Amino acid sequence: MKHARIAWGGAIHEAVEAGGALELRTPALRGRRLSFDEVVWLPPLAPTPRARTILALGLNYADHARELAFKPPEEPLAFAKGSGSLTGHRGFTLRPEGVRHMHYECELAVVIGREARKVGKDDAYDFIAGYTVANDYAIRDYLENWYRPNLRVKNRDTCTPIGPWLVDAGDVPDPMALRLSTHVDGQLTQQGSTADMVFDVPTLVEHFSSFMTLYPGDLILTGTPDGVVDCPIGSHVVCSIEGLGSLENTIIGKNPIQPIPAKR
Amino acid sequence: MKHARIAWGGAIHEAVEAGGALELRTPALRGRRLSFDEVVWLPPLAPTPRARTILALGLNYADHARELAFKPPEEPLAFAKGSGSLTGHRGFTLRPEGVRHMHYECELAVVIGREARKVGKDDAYDFIAGYTVANDYAIRDYLENWYRPNLRVKNRDTCTPIGPWLVDAGDVPDPMALRLSTHVDGQLTQQGSTADMVFDVPTLVEHFSSFMTLYPGDLILTGTPDGVVDCPIGSHVVCSIEGLGSLENTIIGKNPIQPIPAKR
Repeated sequence: MKHARIAWGGAIHEAVEAGGALELRTPALRGRRLSFDEVVWLPPLAPTPRARTILALGLNYADHARELAFKPPEEPLAFAKGSGSLTGHRGFTLRPEGVRHMHYECELAVVIGREARKVGKDDAYDFIAGYTVANDYAIRDYLENWYRPNLRVKNRDTCTPIGPWLVDAGDVPDPMALRLSTHVDGQLTQQGSTADMVFDVPTLVEHFSSFMTLYPGDLILTGTPDGVVDCPIGSHVVCSIEGLGSLENTIIGKNPIQPIPAKR
Repeated sequence: MKHARIAWGGAIHEAVEAGGALELRTPALRGRRLSFDEVVWLPPLAPTPRARTILALGLNYADHARELAFKPPEEPLAFAKGSGSLTGHRGFTLRPEGVRHMHYECELAVVIGREARKVGKDDAYDFIAGYTVANDYAIRDYLENWYRPNLRVKNRDTCTPIGPWLVDAGDVPDPMALRLSTHVDGQLTQQGSTADMVFDVPTLVEHFSSFMTLYPGDLILTGTPDGVVDCPIGSHVVCSIEGLGSLENTIIGKNPIQPIPAKR
């Protein structure tokens, strides 16, 4: 089941993809269909009673690590992200003024379904609700700082599109054998397979849950293969993962959201 | 007003500190008082409709930077934390097995009150709801990794006590002139003043809001002065900030929360 979260008619609705349209699940509107163009796509994550934790992996594909001139890591290299950076399918991502290296990163996103604490690899899939596509943009200009990655590299508003929908784990027979690809303005620029992850999804769940509890709705962005390139203003960036869908995003140069004035 | 969030009688209540007791604000129980011993103290943060972002500063007191043999930074050095690590006043923090360097860090915690985007220093205080005390424990054994701080240093369950309550911003005349101190088993081990921050609170709000939106309920942990020492199992650690209160925490060696079995 491909579960989407959308804004339509002034409200937020849960919907499912049904033959090229979205079918609303709101009780009063149940079964009503909307075309993909009629809605605003939100990150396909239900609200959680707890705050959501987002973990993201770096250098988790050996080819991408080589591309950035690193050795593959000996343990998962990960950092936490604020959820303010999330945005949905067909959204806009701001290219900050004056930066030279804004890279897309097509990533398999894992959504946790049950509280996971000290979970072994062999049980890890039991704790996963589903999968979606993430584009974890990096503004590489700001890489250097004592803490890495600098928040200005990975924590900007609009810089983490995810979607278009959440695919139930049961509908993804082998998450470790999915082709990934990115197209910029119709040109294929990145391709890989989740089979090439340095630390696969069960290993990541085992690793994180060994020292922290993973809660339903938490996200793990599992890293990107090689083939990252700079995305100028106007780029139409489509990240696709086999069986999950294609996440579209457009790079803009001016933030349409204005500053909020102070009280006085 | 000192606003606490507590668990009592099987439910979660909002409460205010009133002369050494807690006064419930739940409509049916309004005015009922409970002693500090009758309740479980939760992080004093109301649930937010959005996920909460937690930012934490490193090396934001020049003396602590020297203590760790660093130069004071030229820009705020910060990282994001997952909220799973939060715990409340009088709680327990697990010392992981086999680690040698578990440091407390007494910090002024800033709670955002209004959406803040591109806010200038002079307006920054208008966007702050209030303040509380944080103890941002660090497990220094795991410092080295490509991303810093390693999640195992700063993102473990129970490793970020905050509280005991939220003090309204209006009741804190000058957040940049508050004495901080930590006592371990009754001995004074750390002291400082928020006046010695390298980047003060208005500068931090200006900095973060220049590239990311801060939302109500987001937290900024503003760094710690020098005087961090290792806390063995059994340590009773009290972090105090003038005008805000004293946050108590006890170090334990065994996690009372058991792993959750897999489905099959």
